[in-house]
Amino acid sequence: MSVTYPRGFLAAGVAAGMKPSGRPDLGLLVADRPCAAAGLFTTNRVQAAPVRLSRARLEASGGRAVGVLVNSGQANAATGPRGEEDARTATARAAELLGADPEELLACSTGVIGEPLHLDLLLAALPGLVASLSEDGGSAFARAIMTTDTLSKEARAEAGRIRVGGCAKGVGMVSPDLATMLAFLTTDARVAPEHLRALARATLEPRFEALTVDGCRSTNDTVLVFASGAAGGDPVEPGTRAWSALEEAFVRAGSSLVAQLARDAEGATRVLLIDVEGARSDEDARRAAKAVADSPLVKTAAFGGDPNPGRILQAVGASGAEVDPDRIDVWVGPVRVVEGGVIPPAYFETKGEEARGAMAGPEVRIRVSLGDGPGRSRALGCDLSYEYVRINGEYTT
Amino acid sequence: MSVTYPRGFLAAGVAAGMKPSGRPDLGLLVADRPCAAAGLFTTNRVQAAPVRLSRARLEASGGRAVGVLVNSGQANAATGPRGEEDARTATARAAELLGADPEELLACSTGVIGEPLHLDLLLAALPGLVASLSEDGGSAFARAIMTTDTLSKEARAEAGRIRVGGCAKGVGMVSPDLATMLAFLTTDARVAPEHLRALARATLEPRFEALTVDGCRSTNDTVLVFASGAAGGDPVEPGTRAWSALEEAFVRAGSSLVAQLARDAEGATRVLLIDVEGARSDEDARRAAKAVADSPLVKTAAFGGDPNPGRILQAVGASGAEVDPDRIDVWVGPVRVVEGGVIPPAYFETKGEEARGAMAGPEVRIRVSLGDGPGRSRALGCDLSYEYVRINGEYTT
Repeated sequence: MSVTYPRGFLAAGVAAGMKPSGRPDLGLLVADRPCAAAGLFTTNRVQAAPVRLSRARLEASGGRAVGVLVNSGQANAATGPRGEEDARTATARAAELLGADPEELLACSTGVIGEPLHLDLLLAALPGLVASLSEDGGSAFARAIMTTDTLSKEARAEAGRIRVGGCAKGVGMVSPDLATMLAFLTTDARVAPEHLRALARATLEPRFEALTVDGCRSTNDTVLVFASGAAGGDPVEPGTRAWSALEEAFVRAGSSLVAQLARDAEGATRVLLIDVEGARSDEDARRAAKAVADSPLVKTAAFGGDPNPGRILQAVGASGAEVDPDRIDVWVGPVRVVEGGVIPPAYFETKGEEARGAMAGPEVRIRVSLGDGPGRSRALGCDLSYEYVRINGEYTT
Repeated sequence: MSVTYPRGFLAAGVAAGMKPSGRPDLGLLVADRPCAAAGLFTTNRVQAAPVRLSRARLEASGGRAVGVLVNSGQANAATGPRGEEDARTATARAAELLGADPEELLACSTGVIGEPLHLDLLLAALPGLVASLSEDGGSAFARAIMTTDTLSKEARAEAGRIRVGGCAKGVGMVSPDLATMLAFLTTDARVAPEHLRALARATLEPRFEALTVDGCRSTNDTVLVFASGAAGGDPVEPGTRAWSALEEAFVRAGSSLVAQLARDAEGATRVLLIDVEGARSDEDARRAAKAVADSPLVKTAAFGGDPNPGRILQAVGASGAEVDPDRIDVWVGPVRVVEGGVIPPAYFETKGEEARGAMAGPEVRIRVSLGDGPGRSRALGCDLSYEYVRINGEYTT
């Protein structure tokens, strides 16, 4: 059910034939009526046509939208004026079928960068897509947005009688050609647009930002949030207990989606949780955590089940974070592998046997302390396997 | 001959037994007498003991040294006070045997991070090492500093009667556990220490900085330059024709070593030359070029022989360089694959056949134009293969 778990939403997913595989590739998520909406978009300077369109429409409306049309197979990025036109044409036709204002329909695309949208196929599939909208359509929608994902990612949470739902796709911040992380969250709470934006920034941005598969920010990354208000009751406002509960529900749903994305990352055999603490600032902690999670040397070591504390130190030292090398401590699972910047000689005498045990499972926890500063951050990553090279090297446009 | 090609230098390399493989692992390069010397060191915040020692000694002496003792097998990084003591002890004993001032002998280490130096073996091998110093010892020295390198890297150049020689090791800015890029250049020109520093910064730094295998800066990266003055003649000073000739010779020798390093990069099947032009500044061009060379998506595509212009655009857009997406042009070899930010539809119609041909060889040239700004830069990289994952994933400490 995911995105249609909260009241006031309908969704659908169909196969329009835009994907060579013939799998579902066109999804639609709509609220009963225009509602509060907010978006988080990629910071890549090269942005896909639908990213520009959705951002502009949310700005123009002050944070109101009726829903989003999503296609998978073509990213509609690096497609120039034709791409912009295609995005406008597709949303205009869908809005017409919905009886909605086209300016209130958002768009997302994911797939091959540069390849033009197969617009004829998309337009031909729209009547069937709109006809199949239903309150049970959340899972069909979640499947239609997948590219190289092996599993659909769905989540739900509650805050009292208020419901939160979500789904996501993307086997990394960027999957191979099939670029992009997309996530959609819905709630039936009544939330004003400006508060919904704050909610998304506070609860979702840090979690999705903490995820890294290959350090590559896509041209299409988008998180969209819709609040239908269909649960009734008073508007939920910051500073209240209801707000805290809603925040918690968003954190749960968002964290669940991020964890599902990490587990399904391209070729990944292990999820890496990198916690950095004691940094001068949260920003420094974030830099160090990301550097460890993004290091190809740490990632290949993780694939081999090798703790390799020297590579963790190397990544922290090169991260740009302000660190005192002599105060760095590192743990792999419960095992301390660096003490005050030094790898204990016992580590080499035992060939790192104890720490090696902590690397054996599907989830590896690496904790780095940089001293006694207040800064802390977590990054979520994964290992780098032969399969990642196969998926990204053997895939041909 | 490499580092002993210029007059006034002796070198040697022996197997001290510090490497489990039993291969040569201890090298010594010395001038006939203390001479001008300069160093470029890693910017990683975590720095190996020999890096700190060499940097401090060059600072204290104002740029004079008699030579350098290099071991491979242990990096002597993350080894704490013991590591500092080991580096001092090793250079003191070598200086004693040479009849030199220990403060004028520099040190470099490369190998496993964290593992203590096998000091007993090193000290036991020193008399034999000093005894075997010779004017033909450059190649033995070049072999003794290798870790996972498959070939030794040597270069020479001339500027009139002045000679320049060099050698290097490192299968990337960082090789796996066996960390580190090391390079040593010698000349028999008479050059004052402050001018030698300027020469190294101007001619070597940009070239070694442009090289990236996996984006990881080692704890031990070092480039050392020695000028013996044994060619005689007047001191070579900036602003003269002799200076320009010497600069050119350093550029040739440095470029040759960098190209040899790139070709021998871990698991690499292709060298990538990324030229960025038309940027707002050289710094912006450098960022964009490095981002393309470091992108695991570009690197795996290169491994697969896939031009994949969308991934190049993604990397440029996320690089942090100031770019106008609509003005980006990209060529793979002679083939334009992005025009004004758009991948031409013909690219997909032909499945990129023409550009694919330009990816087939051992050297791939990617040219990116960001507009009509004055900034330009080149990055040297390599593809990301199964072999990189094997070397770094299956290697165990």
